[in-house]
Amino acid sequence: MQLKRKDLLGIEELNREEIELILETARSFQEVSGREIKKVPALRGKTVVNLFFEDSTRTRISFEIAAKRLSADLLTITKSGSSVAKGETLLDTARNLEALGANLIVCRHRASGAPHWLARNLHASVINAGDGSHEHPSQALLDLLTVADRKKRMDGLQVAIVGDIAHSRVARSNIYAFSKMGAQVRVVGPATMIPRGIENFGVRGQCPQVFYDLGNGIQDCDVIMMLRIQQERIIWTPFSSLTEYSRFYGLNREILKRAKEDVIVMHPGPVNRGIELEPEVADGPHSVILDQVANGVAVRMAILYLLSGHS
Amino acid sequence: MQLKRKDLLGIEELNREEIELILETARSFQEVSGREIKKVPALRGKTVVNLFFEDSTRTRISFEIAAKRLSADLLTITKSGSSVAKGETLLDTARNLEALGANLIVCRHRASGAPHWLARNLHASVINAGDGSHEHPSQALLDLLTVADRKKRMDGLQVAIVGDIAHSRVARSNIYAFSKMGAQVRVVGPATMIPRGIENFGVRGQCPQVFYDLGNGIQDCDVIMMLRIQQERIIWTPFSSLTEYSRFYGLNREILKRAKEDVIVMHPGPVNRGIELEPEVADGPHSVILDQVANGVAVRMAILYLLSGHS
Amino acid sequence: MQLKRKDLLGIEELNREEIELILETARSFQEVSGREIKKVPALRGKTVVNLFFEDSTRTRISFEIAAKRLSADLLTITKSGSSVAKGETLLDTARNLEALGANLIVCRHRASGAPHWLARNLHASVINAGDGSHEHPSQALLDLLTVADRKKRMDGLQVAIVGDIAHSRVARSNIYAFSKMGAQVRVVGPATMIPRGIENFGVRGQCPQVFYDLGNGIQDCDVIMMLRIQQERIIWTPFSSLTEYSRFYGLNREILKRAKEDVIVMHPGPVNRGIELEPEVADGPHSVILDQVANGVAVRMAILYLLSGHS
Repeated sequence: MQLKRKDLLGIEELNREEIELILETARSFQEVSGREIKKVPALRGKTVVNLFFEDSTRTRISFEIAAKRLSADLLTITKSGSSVAKGETLLDTARNLEALGANLIVCRHRASGAPHWLARNLHASVINAGDGSHEHPSQALLDLLTVADRKKRMDGLQVAIVGDIAHSRVARSNIYAFSKMGAQVRVVGPATMIPRGIENFGVRGQCPQVFYDLGNGIQDCDVIMMLRIQQERIIWTPFSSLTEYSRFYGLNREILKRAKEDVIVMHPGPVNRGIELEPEVADGPHSVILDQVANGVAVRMAILYLLSGHS
Repeated sequence: MQLKRKDLLGIEELNREEIELILETARSFQEVSGREIKKVPALRGKTVVNLFFEDSTRTRISFEIAAKRLSADLLTITKSGSSVAKGETLLDTARNLEALGANLIVCRHRASGAPHWLARNLHASVINAGDGSHEHPSQALLDLLTVADRKKRMDGLQVAIVGDIAHSRVARSNIYAFSKMGAQVRVVGPATMIPRGIENFGVRGQCPQVFYDLGNGIQDCDVIMMLRIQQERIIWTPFSSLTEYSRFYGLNREILKRAKEDVIVMHPGPVNRGIELEPEVADGPHSVILDQVANGVAVRMAILYLLSGHS
Repeated sequence: MQLKRKDLLGIEELNREEIELILETARSFQEVSGREIKKVPALRGKTVVNLFFEDSTRTRISFEIAAKRLSADLLTITKSGSSVAKGETLLDTARNLEALGANLIVCRHRASGAPHWLARNLHASVINAGDGSHEHPSQALLDLLTVADRKKRMDGLQVAIVGDIAHSRVARSNIYAFSKMGAQVRVVGPATMIPRGIENFGVRGQCPQVFYDLGNGIQDCDVIMMLRIQQERIIWTPFSSLTEYSRFYGLNREILKRAKEDVIVMHPGPVNRGIELEPEVADGPHSVILDQVANGVAVRMAILYLLSGHS
């Protein structure tokens, strides 16, 4: 089966079959990462460009490893020290990359919609690696893969996403992803961090439930996904400090007892230890944070591989 | 045929046969860039070093892609954050690179002559990727290739170079390049940007003609090469601003009518849209700017390949 | 023979047989660096991470070339612009790298013991590329290889290490290295730069001899190893300036006559010309500084290769 798309811009536009194809392909690449020689020749002679206008070592490195394990040539362009990005428009930068022979462009940008705009204007495949507070599809796909590996089913799973829902592209992409796969998503956070109208967001009949209390929000949950808190956002909340926020929305061993016994705890990283997660929870038996990191490489290999047929 | 040189330092010292050899070799690499698998094993196990003391993402990336498509190992050293470049002399840096096994060193430096000095002191091949306001030979060669592809002949072509001729290594290398190939070069710009004695510069009997008026300068031209304007240089001109400069020397659709009907418009990039070029011209039917970018990779593959026989 | 270790953290814990195994392996890689195609497939599909919390272009590049010549996939993470390193603990960074599939982590850190702590907490192999003023084992091993190549024997050699012994991890690792191989080490410098108790340091029966006078210190020596002086350290000495320091501890042709006729002069680089070394000595017939650089690649290939069996 083939992915009938040139680009991967968001989870919103994917259907369940496409999501399952990406996860299935990622599973075959999980196997590659476990081998002695972690390399396949699938993208030999293709040029992948990491075009990061916003800093993100983790996502950038994950795509870099994915590209190298597929034997692609990789080019990294970050905002700092880049005259490609400087002094010319985004479109000029992208057209130049295409003229240089780029087959796949992995783009992170602070503006929502920037990768979509690139995709419309280029023959090369564009992968959204995070655009503003809009979407971060590869993160949601690796989260799905991690949950699927542990839970073996998706239908009816209770998934709580905790934190600054309003400004999180991770939350947005994951609400689409888990809803489309049949899970029930709950969003948990202070009212200032829950966007208005969230109860009508996503997939009809699978819209998120809203909780303002952490304990109630994770009650009998199968999956808890903690979002990373941005220190600069805390001023919009009724809390006077991160510590204060942490008292109400930080996950510790005590409150975790309200979730199901076999609950898994996720975090996109990097973890602010002692803020979103008590260290004992971050490193504890429920945590699958490092599985998420490992699955990130497999999912990104799958994305690059599936799109490379079109470029 | 072989290039009988260790280094590529400027167009000034090349003869027409050498230029044609490089263009011919580049043509075979244009074909590689069009393939599904854009890779040849020609430089496998060779070490290419990008040694950039001056920032230039475009040229650096073009050489990086060229080296990777030839299967070379590539090392990038930029001024920022480099202790190799810091605290030791240029010669010590270069000797160290040679001791590390560098076969080809691509050097950009703000001082005219720096690559020549390296070349005299090293066994490794040195490629000048821009030295001060002196030469930028790989740019001129990719410009030649682009013109040759479009015009099929070089003898008697009318080529206008427009902008800050006095401080441009691109202009200097191109005056040599086009004159040696039999074209007639015109230089166009305000008097403060035209170096004294330019009418005796280059190849005897093929010296540049000087124009201070854009319309007259491009009258009946086959090729117009717009130089990038440096904002900080504008203070030396009689113009009060970039906008003012642009009114006199910016290329728009109206004035372009004075050139030949099949004129091609070139720019080394990145374009200051609305300054040197009206956007409609930059993106219009006469523009070959993206061909220049694509040809840059092919020409740099040819340079690395031809010199690697000596290293 | 196999190196029975997961990590290379210091010379202190190596025995003579292990050191000889590494040097022997490095010799076979010296041969590779002399070949037309400087590449072997030994580490194909392995992921090597250069994790540099302290800047060091030279060591980083040397490991980078070593990894590439072994056909490994290389990932470079430097402190600047790294969100992996920022906002999370060293252990979280390392665990993430391991989850991403890193097999070998080359770590430089300003804190003594940081690589040891990583090594205890990771399955991946850790190589100390310099930790605070503690150890820099790959530097000492390349120094040993350079001396062994020139002198053919190690027992009874007189080796003078000159400069800021107290703050130098290079000195520390080399005292262990040369003592263990049977050489007699002398340390030479102003009293403020000689650590207390140095005369009982290292290998019993082979402890360093202390000299405060350069001429006496290098008298009849086979090997002189000059350390790089850190400008900011000079304030702790009785000297008013680098020039003043240089008058007493800089090596020039005149004073060099007191060493053996076939003495070799070493420096870890980058050399402060005119401070530690008179230019005529740095570039003179006794200097083996560029051999050290070349041997660095061979030794690091050997280290990566020997440890990769465990990862």
